[in-house]
Amino acid sequence: MKRREFLRKSVLYGSAVIFAPTLLASCAEKQTKQPVTVHHNPHKGKMSLSYFSYELQLRHTFTVATYSRKTTPDVQVRIEYEGYTGHGEASLPPYLGYTTEGTMNFLSKVDLSGFDSPFLLEDILEYVDSIESGQTPAKAAIDIALHDLIGQLTCQPLYALLGLNPDKVLDTSYTIGIDTPDVVREKTLECADMFNILKVKVGYDGDEEMVNTIREVTNLPLVVDANQGWTDRSKALDKICWLQSKGVRMIEQPMPTTMLDDIAWLTQNSPLPVYADESVQRLCDLPKIKGAFTGINIKLMKSTGIREALKMIHYARTEGMHVMLGCMTETSCAVTAAASLSPLADFADLDGNLLISNDLYSGVGLCDGKLCLPQRAGLGLKEE
Amino acid sequence: MKRREFLRKSVLYGSAVIFAPTLLASCAEKQTKQPVTVHHNPHKGKMSLSYFSYELQLRHTFTVATYSRKTTPDVQVRIEYEGYTGHGEASLPPYLGYTTEGTMNFLSKVDLSGFDSPFLLEDILEYVDSIESGQTPAKAAIDIALHDLIGQLTCQPLYALLGLNPDKVLDTSYTIGIDTPDVVREKTLECADMFNILKVKVGYDGDEEMVNTIREVTNLPLVVDANQGWTDRSKALDKICWLQSKGVRMIEQPMPTTMLDDIAWLTQNSPLPVYADESVQRLCDLPKIKGAFTGINIKLMKSTGIREALKMIHYARTEGMHVMLGCMTETSCAVTAAASLSPLADFADLDGNLLISNDLYSGVGLCDGKLCLPQRAGLGLKEE
Repeated sequence: MKRREFLRKSVLYGSAVIFAPTLLASCAEKQTKQPVTVHHNPHKGKMSLSYFSYELQLRHTFTVATYSRKTTPDVQVRIEYEGYTGHGEASLPPYLGYTTEGTMNFLSKVDLSGFDSPFLLEDILEYVDSIESGQTPAKAAIDIALHDLIGQLTCQPLYALLGLNPDKVLDTSYTIGIDTPDVVREKTLECADMFNILKVKVGYDGDEEMVNTIREVTNLPLVVDANQGWTDRSKALDKICWLQSKGVRMIEQPMPTTMLDDIAWLTQNSPLPVYADESVQRLCDLPKIKGAFTGINIKLMKSTGIREALKMIHYARTEGMHVMLGCMTETSCAVTAAASLSPLADFADLDGNLLISNDLYSGVGLCDGKLCLPQRAGLGLKEE
Repeated sequence: MKRREFLRKSVLYGSAVIFAPTLLASCAEKQTKQPVTVHHNPHKGKMSLSYFSYELQLRHTFTVATYSRKTTPDVQVRIEYEGYTGHGEASLPPYLGYTTEGTMNFLSKVDLSGFDSPFLLEDILEYVDSIESGQTPAKAAIDIALHDLIGQLTCQPLYALLGLNPDKVLDTSYTIGIDTPDVVREKTLECADMFNILKVKVGYDGDEEMVNTIREVTNLPLVVDANQGWTDRSKALDKICWLQSKGVRMIEQPMPTTMLDDIAWLTQNSPLPVYADESVQRLCDLPKIKGAFTGINIKLMKSTGIREALKMIHYARTEGMHVMLGCMTETSCAVTAAASLSPLADFADLDGNLLISNDLYSGVGLCDGKLCLPQRAGLGLKEE
């Protein structure tokens, strides 16, 4: 199958399996050819927690300056309650610093037996957060599963529970990976009629050629992520001005997290909005970076999930900051959760499910470049 | 009936009427002896908005330095949708600067016909807020009615929709009004076995006598509200130290809103937490007062309702500020809404429904001094 057909098929139909909780292992194995072992959390209560390791297969090798990889470790989480099953997910790209083993070890410690109902979100998440520091993807997985469960219990899609308008979900950007000019032209052409905004990695020698190559075949607006790539603020400003002239709309994390004063100077002088990515993980980071960036990139795997992401959005808005929603390579589970928040954001970079070949669900879709949320209860995932 | 019996009866049973929407006028009239005219908002859509003026009768004359009164103007709001009725309320104590006429005029302009569902909270409230500036009680009334409606539509109490634990609602303080020592002693004795914390107004000549009189008959913890009463920060600090020695736990708004630098100095030196009341209305006020106060007093009639109050709570927590929830004289409608947020707060001063003699509902109750939320869907109000 050609990449273009494959991508389109994935967008329209998803690539998922029928996936009853009791058949978790066999179905997942059938779909993925992975030996899946479902772990059941030992603490018994009204809610029961289970999880299994699931390796995400990337459609294209993911390459950054320091390494390249074909897979992303991932842990799928289920919380069952009164016959309903909430789905959550911990995506574990190596740069975050969390492992499958560490995540599963954390999940084995989570004792939900003291909580009668998933509606006790504030208490449950505070407890989960208190078990140990870090482990943000595992915490996000529990948060997402609980939100999915609450949606099912109230027969409401997550976006409705959050008071948000599904017609206002955003276009998602789609990342064009670093490659030879021929491949970049081909990839860009493939994507140009399916997306309304593209994303490009910059901050390395050759990034101008990359942008120029894309501009040979499309005039779509671009967003760029420098991944802390620049250390000279004046040169960074020159590059940003050049990027603006090429139709770039915003830039993520132009300089290292340690260079906050330089970033603040850059933001003050930049013609493009400058968003924090590596500089912001959770809510408590926001007061520290205030004034240094125009906006923040919130990712559920960093924020510990939906509930804290919402708090981050409101804090950012109160301080006049812009908001984008990003993701890791993830199944449609976590991407749908993030997409449900997108009516509150300025940019959405939620293509993580499109970058893998073994999604377990259909969930959020794409319609003329715009994210499209299922109207079903909770996350509205279908395991096909 | 003696005051004590009356107060207890009100706490246990409420004082409400059976109150079908179609019988609004006649029932309200029967209960209150007020000529009630229900106004129907002219804009027709899936949601229909109606409202009527309702004068709250205070149990005791309310006296502050500048005036005294026996009633509080109030506008009751209903939003009907698919056979359900959400209840909201705009309480209009004169010092807020809003009138019954202005509130009803605002409500007549609200066009909900463009919204298919009360779940579109974010959009609806943004629209309502955009109609004109101010009018925070009217905006709160709509916000509260929508939350009540959403609770009913999902068969969940408001606290559950907010992810909060009803067992963690707070004790409410109860205000002992300024009066002669004999009356203060009598009032305090009446209240001392029903509440776990009392509130006293200070910031005027004679406030020490008031506190001493209360201390003659009870050792209950006290909170105090100075209502901007002091203009000399050193004297204010001396007074706060004295109040601390008398078992006072916190102080509200010790100095005028215009004296922010002095308040900041006072907060820095105060042995008691200092809360902003008049200095904070809405979310946008918080960045301005940050650092000057230990905490904030959030009142739904100032904040435009529950949704913005939540944002204020999360902002305050992120900045390390404390939170209290206050109210006006209100029926159990708005007080129940505020009480539902109290698991997120440090103090609750939610006695507004206990201070009136013509409550329209039973809702939040009191159990050994602690607020007690109904388990029914939405606000769980009963019109009896």
